[in-house]
Amino acid sequence: MSKILRVNMENRTAEFQEVPDQYALMGGRWLTTSIVCDEVEPTCHPLGPKNKIVVAPGIVTGTAAPTSARISVGGKAPLTGTIKEANAGSIFPYRMAQMGLKAIIIEGQPEDPEQFWLLEVSKDGATFQPADEYCGQMLSESFQALYERYGDKTPIMGIGTSGEMRMSMAGICFNDQDGRATRYAGRGGLGAVLGSKGLKFIVLDYSDAPGVEIADKELFDTGRRKLRDALREHPVTKPGGALNSYGTAVLINILNEAGGLPTRNFSRGTFEGAAKIAGEAINAACQERGGAGMTGHGCSPTCIIQCSNVWPDEDGNEVVSCIEYESDWALGANCEIDDLDAIAKMVKLCNEYGLDTIEAGVTIGVAMEAGLAEFGDAKKAIKLLKKIGKGKGIGRILGQGAAFTGRAYGLTRVPTVKGQAMPAYEPRAVKGIGVTYATSTMGADHTSGYTIAPEILAVGGDLDALEIQGKAETSRNLQVATAFLDATGHCLFIAFAILDIAEGFQGMIEECNGVLGTNWTADDVTAIGKEILKKERGFNEAAGFGPMDDRIPEFMHLEKLPPHNVTWDVPDEMLDSVYDF
Amino acid sequence: MSKILRVNMENRTAEFQEVPDQYALMGGRWLTTSIVCDEVEPTCHPLGPKNKIVVAPGIVTGTAAPTSARISVGGKAPLTGTIKEANAGSIFPYRMAQMGLKAIIIEGQPEDPEQFWLLEVSKDGATFQPADEYCGQMLSESFQALYERYGDKTPIMGIGTSGEMRMSMAGICFNDQDGRATRYAGRGGLGAVLGSKGLKFIVLDYSDAPGVEIADKELFDTGRRKLRDALREHPVTKPGGALNSYGTAVLINILNEAGGLPTRNFSRGTFEGAAKIAGEAINAACQERGGAGMTGHGCSPTCIIQCSNVWPDEDGNEVVSCIEYESDWALGANCEIDDLDAIAKMVKLCNEYGLDTIEAGVTIGVAMEAGLAEFGDAKKAIKLLKKIGKGKGIGRILGQGAAFTGRAYGLTRVPTVKGQAMPAYEPRAVKGIGVTYATSTMGADHTSGYTIAPEILAVGGDLDALEIQGKAETSRNLQVATAFLDATGHCLFIAFAILDIAEGFQGMIEECNGVLGTNWTADDVTAIGKEILKKERGFNEAAGFGPMDDRIPEFMHLEKLPPHNVTWDVPDEMLDSVYDF
Repeated sequence: MSKILRVNMENRTAEFQEVPDQYALMGGRWLTTSIVCDEVEPTCHPLGPKNKIVVAPGIVTGTAAPTSARISVGGKAPLTGTIKEANAGSIFPYRMAQMGLKAIIIEGQPEDPEQFWLLEVSKDGATFQPADEYCGQMLSESFQALYERYGDKTPIMGIGTSGEMRMSMAGICFNDQDGRATRYAGRGGLGAVLGSKGLKFIVLDYSDAPGVEIADKELFDTGRRKLRDALREHPVTKPGGALNSYGTAVLINILNEAGGLPTRNFSRGTFEGAAKIAGEAINAACQERGGAGMTGHGCSPTCIIQCSNVWPDEDGNEVVSCIEYESDWALGANCEIDDLDAIAKMVKLCNEYGLDTIEAGVTIGVAMEAGLAEFGDAKKAIKLLKKIGKGKGIGRILGQGAAFTGRAYGLTRVPTVKGQAMPAYEPRAVKGIGVTYATSTMGADHTSGYTIAPEILAVGGDLDALEIQGKAETSRNLQVATAFLDATGHCLFIAFAILDIAEGFQGMIEECNGVLGTNWTADDVTAIGKEILKKERGFNEAAGFGPMDDRIPEFMHLEKLPPHNVTWDVPDEMLDSVYDF
Repeated sequence: MSKILRVNMENRTAEFQEVPDQYALMGGRWLTTSIVCDEVEPTCHPLGPKNKIVVAPGIVTGTAAPTSARISVGGKAPLTGTIKEANAGSIFPYRMAQMGLKAIIIEGQPEDPEQFWLLEVSKDGATFQPADEYCGQMLSESFQALYERYGDKTPIMGIGTSGEMRMSMAGICFNDQDGRATRYAGRGGLGAVLGSKGLKFIVLDYSDAPGVEIADKELFDTGRRKLRDALREHPVTKPGGALNSYGTAVLINILNEAGGLPTRNFSRGTFEGAAKIAGEAINAACQERGGAGMTGHGCSPTCIIQCSNVWPDEDGNEVVSCIEYESDWALGANCEIDDLDAIAKMVKLCNEYGLDTIEAGVTIGVAMEAGLAEFGDAKKAIKLLKKIGKGKGIGRILGQGAAFTGRAYGLTRVPTVKGQAMPAYEPRAVKGIGVTYATSTMGADHTSGYTIAPEILAVGGDLDALEIQGKAETSRNLQVATAFLDATGHCLFIAFAILDIAEGFQGMIEECNGVLGTNWTADDVTAIGKEILKKERGFNEAAGFGPMDDRIPEFMHLEKLPPHNVTWDVPDEMLDSVYDF
């Protein structure tokens, strides 16, 4: 029988509770959003005692469902002031679900803001230990120490120095299936919320874990096979396919071709050095350098897409996993840095300090705009990142993100929505993703309605990226479907396969029905997706957000983006129509 | 015939324009607010090309009306994102009005953000000169150079280094009647807007100024005598009265007694060192030290209250004018600094860099909370101010104000509303002023509805400061009356006399009728005040502000303030009722 673990940091108590009926069928984002909406005052201070962090594996997480070991983390985000769900693939949710833990709710706040704690969770209960010894450390160092203390298969969730310092670009770190401290629920600054609660790490002891209860094993197996087959068939997700061969950075050349690769702090849509940092270059270097270098690496259990990589130095020694498209772009093209070794070093630093790489890279770009470094100066960029990790001097500016940094230096070319940095797609050149950035319940976020699929990749349709017509609907439909997908515990990347292959989509639903004993159809997928979005939107409205917050920054209306020389010209009414449902 | 001077900084043009009919009767805040609402897109970036700065003397400014040489500066504020009117007493509006200049509108933005300009305005037109030679200077140094260039009676308006760096605590500086660079339209960061437009100084050549046209000289004279008599009679404003003898800092002891003097970054309502920094202590030191030391100094022409002072060093040499209550408190009690010489040095630095002293002091308090200095450490506080003026390292954090600094260091005890620092009255101990802070159209602002008069000073009524009942109405009525008063060009301090003495109030209306040829009554005062507020509120709503922004920070709901041990407990519904008119 599933439980919820409620952790109060004010008096350091932790107790298992029954799952209330209304949460029985929920998982992932559906559950984190619902609990946040039920328990957190929308107007509360994100770093105050009234905010909460809710952690939940997806509905099918912990089972053999393909590519399903995702965990959702919810709360009110310091970066945006909105509700937030950030998710990651890791061994943590896989084991947590198998322990019968439907959610962990972390609430309250200790009196002493300098004291940090570690929470040990097992089937018998949860115990606090002082965690000060890990404070100030690199995350890889802390994880290593925790493996020595608790065993090297221990699932860990925690924050780096950035979270300790309550920085708005602090993510929440989880271990990958090889034990690296590298998988992030990165966006929105939820790491700062955990820091404000004095919770440095949670470790799981999953011995005697009962596993996930499956109501209809046969149906579940039918479903997961359908999804598996779809993933193995689709050119984007299949073994040896685009993601598996080149990782997510396969998108570098594609977006560059489309003129939609934000370059030099969103002042151009193409990057001269694109080929040098592209997924193809990563793949080639991994093969050439050998040693630890690897593409086609899986970040979490059950994944059959395996799009992660391990970047090696010239001698084949591991530098970092993983150079994702977003990190590669943010710290590369966006800063006009075309050196993968330098980018790898920066990704490594982000992982060590606990930073969201997108927010970090866009912030460095804004800092370059402010004259703190020349565009293209990787050495200086690395120095700036180190200042963040140490919280020294202007590190306290940069650590609060791109919007904050832009304000500190009085700039207007600051690519953010609701205070969150835009990801690696230029909204002026790819209109639909701009609609998603503007209207997402979480600030500029590509994952909440990935219109890049139909606009750039001809997946789930084939739309003209520069065309405005119909993009509100495209974004809306994808936002709805994604909200459901984020509830299941699957990685967003199954979307490629299920958008194009109906059987795969059916398989996803059958997996859920198999686990839960429900009879959901595609209509339920839509209804649940809408329910999640409505709750999130309601939270934001109660927090004071309105239509004027669903806007793309002024400079994108005024400045033409080369090479297409286009401005942001989607009418406000179209943005305001996205939530008409 | 009055004119408007329209200045475009994109192409550096400046032309006199006829005053459109709808603005004919307006002055001061009424005019700046109306032009901003008519011409500025509420959602524009405050530092982008679409924002404007509007400068306007009051309706009776430039005449012999007592205490009437105020200037309003309007625009969209970088600190708050709201509309803003900040005003100052100076020779500038006095001469500007006499030149027949009803308003200066500064719009557009040059391409090169590093180039600064000086605008010479005379009856014949307006001419641009490069101003780079003044950049980076202390303001007193620049003003001195401008006097040598243009004559020592030249009215000057301009920004310091903080405005050049587009900092949100940058005010707009004007000269006092002795030529000091010390009178500020301080709040909201309008200096940053001027900086974003590359306009460093405006100088007026008022030779052959025709003077203010007065439609009915007799009525005007009747009115101004009534107001003069009221000012001379009221214990707060009369010669040798509270303000004249002790300056505004007479309030230090009074608020301390009331338990409403925010101390140690708004964690207590009383300050042990209050008596050492009180107006009485300023007066005593000025007398004892002699030399340049002076209380009862007038900041601007026509003032008969004369509440300014000149602080001398131990040898009687001038250090700074003026140690206002707000500056004294912000840099003193709020930082637990009880040394007037140190406070004077800090006020001097604020004047030199062009900083709003309230925002600066509250920011230093928050920085102390963050551990950047010990409370009470004046030397360190001075160092922090110098970092702001130079824009080095964390100076870029502090220069953006208290809310920004609080976020940089992950704090929750941050006393701001809509991003603007609270002034020197604790809302938990003086409920009505909290209602004004929360609902003012400009962020936390005492001057927009000074309930301290009836709540603490028994002026215009006698209310219990700790009582909630009726405070929405008190704040509303004062906000309405103040909006009108800010249109007239009178200093807010005439309010003491006109609230208690009906003839004085009548005199103010008759002055306006005398100048304009109107037949306004008290009902028109209310109607015009409401019109101004509605326009401002409308601007803010169109910019995305709603009820959730009209709130006092969470920590004041949660933490009890000694000595009364009270929290902020005014119901939200009461706040939301303030604009029910």
